[in-house]
Amino acid sequence: MFCPSSPPAGLSEKAFRYIDLHQNEFVQTLKEWVAVESDSVQPQPRLRRELFRMMTLAADRLRRLGASVDSVDPGVQQLPNGQSLPIPPIILAELGNDPKKPTVCFYGHLDVQPARQEDGWLTDPYTLTEVDGKLYGRGATDNKGPVLAWINAVSTFRSLEEDLPVNIKFVIEGMEEAGSVGLEELVRKEKDRFFSSVDYVVISDNLWLSQRKPALTYGMRGNSYFRVEVRCRDRDFHSGTFGGILSEPMADLVALLGSLVDSSGHILIPGIYDQVAPLTEEERKMYEAIDLDLEEYRKSVQVKRFLFDTKEEILMHLWRYPSLSIHGIEGAFDEPGAKTVIPGQVIGKFSIRLVPHMNTSVVEKQVTNHLEYIFSKRNSSNQMAVSMTLGLQPWIANIKDKQYLAAKRAIKTVFGTEPDMIRDGSTIPIARIFQDTIQKSVMMLPLGAVDDGEHSQNEKINRWNYIEGSKLFAAFFLEMAKLHY
Amino acid sequence: MFCPSSPPAGLSEKAFRYIDLHQNEFVQTLKEWVAVESDSVQPQPRLRRELFRMMTLAADRLRRLGASVDSVDPGVQQLPNGQSLPIPPIILAELGNDPKKPTVCFYGHLDVQPARQEDGWLTDPYTLTEVDGKLYGRGATDNKGPVLAWINAVSTFRSLEEDLPVNIKFVIEGMEEAGSVGLEELVRKEKDRFFSSVDYVVISDNLWLSQRKPALTYGMRGNSYFRVEVRCRDRDFHSGTFGGILSEPMADLVALLGSLVDSSGHILIPGIYDQVAPLTEEERKMYEAIDLDLEEYRKSVQVKRFLFDTKEEILMHLWRYPSLSIHGIEGAFDEPGAKTVIPGQVIGKFSIRLVPHMNTSVVEKQVTNHLEYIFSKRNSSNQMAVSMTLGLQPWIANIKDKQYLAAKRAIKTVFGTEPDMIRDGSTIPIARIFQDTIQKSVMMLPLGAVDDGEHSQNEKINRWNYIEGSKLFAAFFLEMAKLHY
Repeated sequence: MFCPSSPPAGLSEKAFRYIDLHQNEFVQTLKEWVAVESDSVQPQPRLRRELFRMMTLAADRLRRLGASVDSVDPGVQQLPNGQSLPIPPIILAELGNDPKKPTVCFYGHLDVQPARQEDGWLTDPYTLTEVDGKLYGRGATDNKGPVLAWINAVSTFRSLEEDLPVNIKFVIEGMEEAGSVGLEELVRKEKDRFFSSVDYVVISDNLWLSQRKPALTYGMRGNSYFRVEVRCRDRDFHSGTFGGILSEPMADLVALLGSLVDSSGHILIPGIYDQVAPLTEEERKMYEAIDLDLEEYRKSVQVKRFLFDTKEEILMHLWRYPSLSIHGIEGAFDEPGAKTVIPGQVIGKFSIRLVPHMNTSVVEKQVTNHLEYIFSKRNSSNQMAVSMTLGLQPWIANIKDKQYLAAKRAIKTVFGTEPDMIRDGSTIPIARIFQDTIQKSVMMLPLGAVDDGEHSQNEKINRWNYIEGSKLFAAFFLEMAKLHY
Repeated sequence: MFCPSSPPAGLSEKAFRYIDLHQNEFVQTLKEWVAVESDSVQPQPRLRRELFRMMTLAADRLRRLGASVDSVDPGVQQLPNGQSLPIPPIILAELGNDPKKPTVCFYGHLDVQPARQEDGWLTDPYTLTEVDGKLYGRGATDNKGPVLAWINAVSTFRSLEEDLPVNIKFVIEGMEEAGSVGLEELVRKEKDRFFSSVDYVVISDNLWLSQRKPALTYGMRGNSYFRVEVRCRDRDFHSGTFGGILSEPMADLVALLGSLVDSSGHILIPGIYDQVAPLTEEERKMYEAIDLDLEEYRKSVQVKRFLFDTKEEILMHLWRYPSLSIHGIEGAFDEPGAKTVIPGQVIGKFSIRLVPHMNTSVVEKQVTNHLEYIFSKRNSSNQMAVSMTLGLQPWIANIKDKQYLAAKRAIKTVFGTEPDMIRDGSTIPIARIFQDTIQKSVMMLPLGAVDDGEHSQNEKINRWNYIEGSKLFAAFFLEMAKLHY
């Protein structure tokens, strides 16, 4: 398919030098982007206008790079309170369409989580502020910094008047923090147009596992979220007047929730582990190679003891085994103090993090059957109803895909080390959506360090990560081209 | 001790006739008392002033009866928000001190629960309104009606210029609905003064079990309220990032709560039934005699099925066996919707209704030992803490005490039937306080019908209950005198 021409030798050194020399300009652009309060979570019209301004800024930047830019209007966002808000455009951009080169599509987002200085920020969250090599500001690492690092890499080739080693596409949205409203629909719609020429998708919207060692992410857990309702009647009861003669909904619910997982974290739902991919020797070795000081990690998260003692077991139970968490109960007495109530109907909430090759619809059946069995054994006069309110499939990539190989080589070139091959225990649906819809390899190539504090107060990206990350992307383009040589 | 003189024959008929003839006056006084918004629950100064006015009205009424009245100032009520409010006086009144007669002390309260017409009242809650023989108004049955019925009985003897068959004392408070603030302290302080001459205490602050058949109440369950806290760390966790490697506090708590009671309502805490009084044949017969249509009751409370099928079992499990209810969980996710949180620390709330001869401090130890055992078996890395936040002893009277005999005879005279001998599954601490502090027989002699709706919208007392209740108290005085003859 590809008839590539090898990039000239020494180009990477030239690109790296350019990036080093222009790093202050790159930081300046990040500062301008961070200054836009592109908060997609809160519904104020002022913030929504900032979000639109942010997307315009990015579209202009891409046009100045020479890209052809299409700002697609995804329509209107309906809030639960009935309010409707315009959704900022999703940018579909394209730079180069040489059939001899592979086409890499970069996904990123430019909206941010809310931030106010009075929440505990040491600096104004919308004024990028450098302290000891750390660039503090909302969106610095999630996700404005990585989006700009990719743009910096592209612009480096343009400024050096060098041919881009790969064709580049961009998908940049402004609603990620609000659930990527409208994105999946657009990806489906553009499957046979914009995405038809895409060979690889790169996402850079997560973090390394360490402060200094780069990582490559090849999997994320999915999530099946359940509600189980037990109902006696609509109204509550007084425990003095009714205690002793009722099948109390809370007793039923506590028994149901108590049947889900044992004290070692093992899920007790029959069949739940049947579809979990077996552990291969090759995979086991990847965990051994990962840079994680378990004791330091344990202290940093303020946990007295984990369920497992070794780094490998901890990582496997976060990434490649399912877990079940009970989140809470709706409808019972949840306030401070004492209330002698027998709740009339209660709803338990729990979810299961899914791993390859578990499937949400199989899990839904297993959970429902299990709870129905447990409930039937109680011979309760109450009514029970189980439903899966959210079902997100797990995602896993084939790490033998060419872009993983290219990324590893680029990391070796820029950082002088092999990356940690990591997964993520949580769920970013977008990776799975790209993989399922356009059926191409998806890779997550993070730039930020583990302590960047995305979504937190004092979010930052290290200048070093931002600049070396820009080099990493440049090196990645070159390695991709070489692999297709 | 007593050297009584028998009341003249025919006096009861005379008294009943007087009450029938003056019933409209008695209803008029109830109307005047209901018109005072003596709400002790809400902190508005206007309501507190009404409460004071109510107590003054009552003190004046008792003085006009010829009683010596002492209005004791219990001091100041501290609200959780820092506000302090004056507590209305507690009335200690005395009418007659003939050493040849027994002294009966009547306890009642004149404060009420909040009520607003817009909450669903069909009439103004503070305008006593008669519809089909029902007198609707806040406080009509709880507790202004019964207090006035007692006063009506006393005033009948005064109006007829007949000697009172017994010495009467009154304890009337204005803070019952707010937890009887200051009352227990006053009872202790007056133990060897005001209460030294008291032989019997009568409370009329509950309801019959039926609409037409009178009842005598000889027991109430106590209550031990527990909180059990399971803590990993102060902050919550994200279930994607931590699910699978933690001893999750919710899993521990659900296991702890699930170990307390089985699906048949049987409490699983070792030893908890050891001190429950054995069921005697005599007691069993009392349940058989009680007027309760189980099917009608089940429908009226909208429950599909109770844990037991017979009237006797239902009553025993409400009154003479302990029950355990799980009220809820503080600190977990309790809102509608989905949140993928692992709560960092959670607090379970449950309580046990205690019956004779269970003891709160024994129960506290049993519960604590049990939960510590269950928790230790889990080998969890979390911390658990159990505490009993409220411990109210159960109360039971000796139904062979003279006043129970007198009340039964009076009921037979006025209503032509034996009373239902009932207990209450809930807890009114005041009965136990009187019994423990002044060490005299306490009896609960209700006047109101089961459908009076105390604390609800459209609270009422039937004119029939109010007037026959006044006769009942008059007949009770006479029977007490006869028994001491």
